[in-house]
Amino acid sequence: MDSALFKTIALIGKHKNPDIVIPLLSLAEYLTDRGISVVLDSLTAAHISNSRYPILTLEEIGKQADLAIVLGGDGTMLNIARALVPFSVPLIGINQGRLGFLTDLTADTMHETLNDMLAGQFVVENRMLLTVEVTRNGESVFKELAFNDVVLHRGISSGMIELEVHINGEYVYSLRSDGLIIATPTGSTAYALSSGGPILHPGLNLMTLVPICPHTLSNRPIVIGADATIEIKVHFTTEIKIYTDSHSWFDLSEHDRVFIQRCPETIKLLHPVHHSYYRMLREKLGWSGILQKNSR
Amino acid sequence: MDSALFKTIALIGKHKNPDIVIPLLSLAEYLTDRGISVVLDSLTAAHISNSRYPILTLEEIGKQADLAIVLGGDGTMLNIARALVPFSVPLIGINQGRLGFLTDLTADTMHETLNDMLAGQFVVENRMLLTVEVTRNGESVFKELAFNDVVLHRGISSGMIELEVHINGEYVYSLRSDGLIIATPTGSTAYALSSGGPILHPGLNLMTLVPICPHTLSNRPIVIGADATIEIKVHFTTEIKIYTDSHSWFDLSEHDRVFIQRCPETIKLLHPVHHSYYRMLREKLGWSGILQKNSR
Amino acid sequence: MDSALFKTIALIGKHKNPDIVIPLLSLAEYLTDRGISVVLDSLTAAHISNSRYPILTLEEIGKQADLAIVLGGDGTMLNIARALVPFSVPLIGINQGRLGFLTDLTADTMHETLNDMLAGQFVVENRMLLTVEVTRNGESVFKELAFNDVVLHRGISSGMIELEVHINGEYVYSLRSDGLIIATPTGSTAYALSSGGPILHPGLNLMTLVPICPHTLSNRPIVIGADATIEIKVHFTTEIKIYTDSHSWFDLSEHDRVFIQRCPETIKLLHPVHHSYYRMLREKLGWSGILQKNSR
Amino acid sequence: MDSALFKTIALIGKHKNPDIVIPLLSLAEYLTDRGISVVLDSLTAAHISNSRYPILTLEEIGKQADLAIVLGGDGTMLNIARALVPFSVPLIGINQGRLGFLTDLTADTMHETLNDMLAGQFVVENRMLLTVEVTRNGESVFKELAFNDVVLHRGISSGMIELEVHINGEYVYSLRSDGLIIATPTGSTAYALSSGGPILHPGLNLMTLVPICPHTLSNRPIVIGADATIEIKVHFTTEIKIYTDSHSWFDLSEHDRVFIQRCPETIKLLHPVHHSYYRMLREKLGWSGILQKNSR
Repeated sequence: MDSALFKTIALIGKHKNPDIVIPLLSLAEYLTDRGISVVLDSLTAAHISNSRYPILTLEEIGKQADLAIVLGGDGTMLNIARALVPFSVPLIGINQGRLGFLTDLTADTMHETLNDMLAGQFVVENRMLLTVEVTRNGESVFKELAFNDVVLHRGISSGMIELEVHINGEYVYSLRSDGLIIATPTGSTAYALSSGGPILHPGLNLMTLVPICPHTLSNRPIVIGADATIEIKVHFTTEIKIYTDSHSWFDLSEHDRVFIQRCPETIKLLHPVHHSYYRMLREKLGWSGILQKNSR
Repeated sequence: MDSALFKTIALIGKHKNPDIVIPLLSLAEYLTDRGISVVLDSLTAAHISNSRYPILTLEEIGKQADLAIVLGGDGTMLNIARALVPFSVPLIGINQGRLGFLTDLTADTMHETLNDMLAGQFVVENRMLLTVEVTRNGESVFKELAFNDVVLHRGISSGMIELEVHINGEYVYSLRSDGLIIATPTGSTAYALSSGGPILHPGLNLMTLVPICPHTLSNRPIVIGADATIEIKVHFTTEIKIYTDSHSWFDLSEHDRVFIQRCPETIKLLHPVHHSYYRMLREKLGWSGILQKNSR
Repeated sequence: MDSALFKTIALIGKHKNPDIVIPLLSLAEYLTDRGISVVLDSLTAAHISNSRYPILTLEEIGKQADLAIVLGGDGTMLNIARALVPFSVPLIGINQGRLGFLTDLTADTMHETLNDMLAGQFVVENRMLLTVEVTRNGESVFKELAFNDVVLHRGISSGMIELEVHINGEYVYSLRSDGLIIATPTGSTAYALSSGGPILHPGLNLMTLVPICPHTLSNRPIVIGADATIEIKVHFTTEIKIYTDSHSWFDLSEHDRVFIQRCPETIKLLHPVHHSYYRMLREKLGWSGILQKNSR
Repeated sequence: MDSALFKTIALIGKHKNPDIVIPLLSLAEYLTDRGISVVLDSLTAAHISNSRYPILTLEEIGKQADLAIVLGGDGTMLNIARALVPFSVPLIGINQGRLGFLTDLTADTMHETLNDMLAGQFVVENRMLLTVEVTRNGESVFKELAFNDVVLHRGISSGMIELEVHINGEYVYSLRSDGLIIATPTGSTAYALSSGGPILHPGLNLMTLVPICPHTLSNRPIVIGADATIEIKVHFTTEIKIYTDSHSWFDLSEHDRVFIQRCPETIKLLHPVHHSYYRMLREKLGWSGILQKNSR
């Protein structure tokens, strides 16, 4: 199999989760048997004693691997995907438990599914990310990537926050609410959905602005093109935080300006050919035709 | 068993449904064996040849039976309950398929559950109904009972309807929408829930007004006491219908006035002692703790 | 003014509305004074006696006019826009009353605003439309254009309808509801918004599927790309109608198949350079910062 | 006027707001002229130099005054109302700016309106409150009153919180969300409304449980009777706070138990006879019939 599509594959497991050791080593052996060079993420390897596989940082993986296989849930995928964005390494997600939106292989059937995928039987899906930057008195004080969403939230202050939103330099509204979510299509099925946002097909290049508990009931979610620049000015507030993918946060001050744009790079997800986004939606959202009401 | 609580029990099955014949006859035999007089509803009996049980109209059942057991779904229960309201006959609902909101015994376990209930192990729940009356030029042109809801809807006309709503003589709002639902607590988990209404605990004496696709986004559901009188004046419209429990409807004209009040009688539902309204909600609404989203 | 951008301009008024006669004739004179040939829509001209302007059908207008100015509301604009789609005639909308989403000039200031626009001070906005076709036993039985939305609705039947939705040949869900709206970005602020749909920026090429009072509460609006083909199969129902822009409708039968796609042509709206979509949203949706709640 | 209904009236202004001094002194003079004893709240009096009126604490006011007139917004009313609950002092609210839900007299017309009210031309409205108590290892660690709502919220932690809700000892659901609001009818138009809760008529004795951004989309608001006891068990969480009326908060720990019940005392609001709750709703929620959409 010298013509392998993926000569070097990195295996990355959910951090601090010893349960992934067995399926991960099983997967490593499976790949090695096929003549593929297997490398391990250094944090993952910390759980594994006497591994015979090279141990690399995520940055080294980004430079050396042709494919990264992530064993974990959607949260792990979000974190790894952001870290590997600069390197254009395609990703496959394997879920040990129930399927996630981003992890569509199960540990149980992974060998069989990977067999086809490693032979070229896969579809590539490009997913957009957001970059967010906060400036204070003209200087950049926070800069991050978000795969799911950027969230501005009042934190523990009991009052509402007030944000002034501009899109491409044009004033949109002054929002009083618990917060505001700016989600990618990938993030549209996460926090944004709980706040009343629409489901955006993941292949689209869009952003949606979803207010959280807005004071004005007609402040409904808005969908705009991914080529727009969103600028948010922070108005009077006792406290307001900005979160990216729920993994990092930063304390905003009055008069801070938040800029949100599409990241030029994308995340390449590889799916089995029988992958269906709508089937995943049906499963995750319980669209299984279950009756919820009495006679009507 | 001469001290039976229920000396005469009427059995009523879902109309035009031959599948209920076997469980119904099984139930009849079970009751007869206990010395209880069994009578059958005449429409139900139409499916059964050579029945040895007396066949009565619903009105006769209302006068003679101490209890009515309904085999069917929630829709059947709604219909039978309305018909028996004047007679205060308590009701037990048995569902052949999955449980309904009103039919909380299953055919599979009915003998065992009924054993306890016939011995007095049950809880009585009183459910309120609505009366609706339409007047035209001062004359009554339509009068009905509703157990779930009264619905005013635009029907096939493509425009919105406009209704003027008054409560206890006080002007509330002029609503432009697809329609308006006035639901009882029982009906709050039916059509009203799909339209954004709240879940009202079924033991409460309340009515909720739930607009259907209102033009003004802040026209949110309102909950009022059951002692109120709702009056709805029909404004300009090309077509508007009024429905009660989805079972009967009437064409409204401009300037018609619709009056909705609590019905003085209630429906008595008997439940097993282990009955739990919240468990039913969890089952029917899929509150089983299933994760719907990716990491957050 | 021999270098006029628009040598022939058609004036079209809201049908059966004599109030537009005065502003329309004032506008005609204003344009004629500038050396522009003015033609009138034949239905509009029916209100005007002894007009000195040529009277044309919409089709003739489509072929001869360089610009159509519509005096009326958004409903009139929808109708005229659909009729002129094959001819690529750009449109300007003038509203006599309050501004509409599509009619952003007011009769009061139209001369002054048009002065700039006729001199080339305008922005062109391309808006997408939908084509909808219904097939029965393989034959086309209904075909229409929709600028706002295609709506499938249960009409007067009291039960829910059941639709099976496919996108690009892939099964999406079986929907039990009052109906389903497929809206363009233009239509996202119309009926779809009342049913819980998102606001889609009008410059985007998207479609949104918005269920009307769905039985399954997690059946939330979905946004897909405009290059998709939506196919809807009509399941058991007593009655179901399909509407396009609320102006035409058709009775569907069980097993009918409905195909919805983007129309290859677009509608060209001309706006003043100071036009702001977000300002219109703020005005129409009451985002004026009015407090709605007590202390929080 | 020796037969005055209200012999001693306390005047209480919004704290730290010097703008209320002039209307407050004007009101004091107006009442004194009528032979009524005026007393001032001590915090209010801090803004006023050389006042000739007795200065009392809120507790002294509770014991001595026959009526308290509050000048401020709904937030001030909430705070004063809670403080005076043990003393059954009726309250009148006067708003300097725009009307609030609880403050239905305007400073501009207060003399004229009070003239009638002091002569007995008023309606009394009893509003329910909640008591909330938190126990930790069996000991009470927090106890407060809430007029609007009790809110459990995740604070700044980025993950969802998980709460287990019981009503009258019966398990209701395990909620994963940003938080949960338990609102009185008074609070139903505050934060609960922004989170999708229903409007409860303020005269009713009800509580509504409104999830904030619930993970499970079918976790809809529930309305229960005010005689119920709600118990909430706090499950795994990195951080969770409990708020009452947004004015006081407490840090919850895992395994804390929160008990919410109706407070035995009520708040007595006095309204002018022409007071209309529905008119206030129309004004505050913008139900003024403004069109929000394009043609439909």
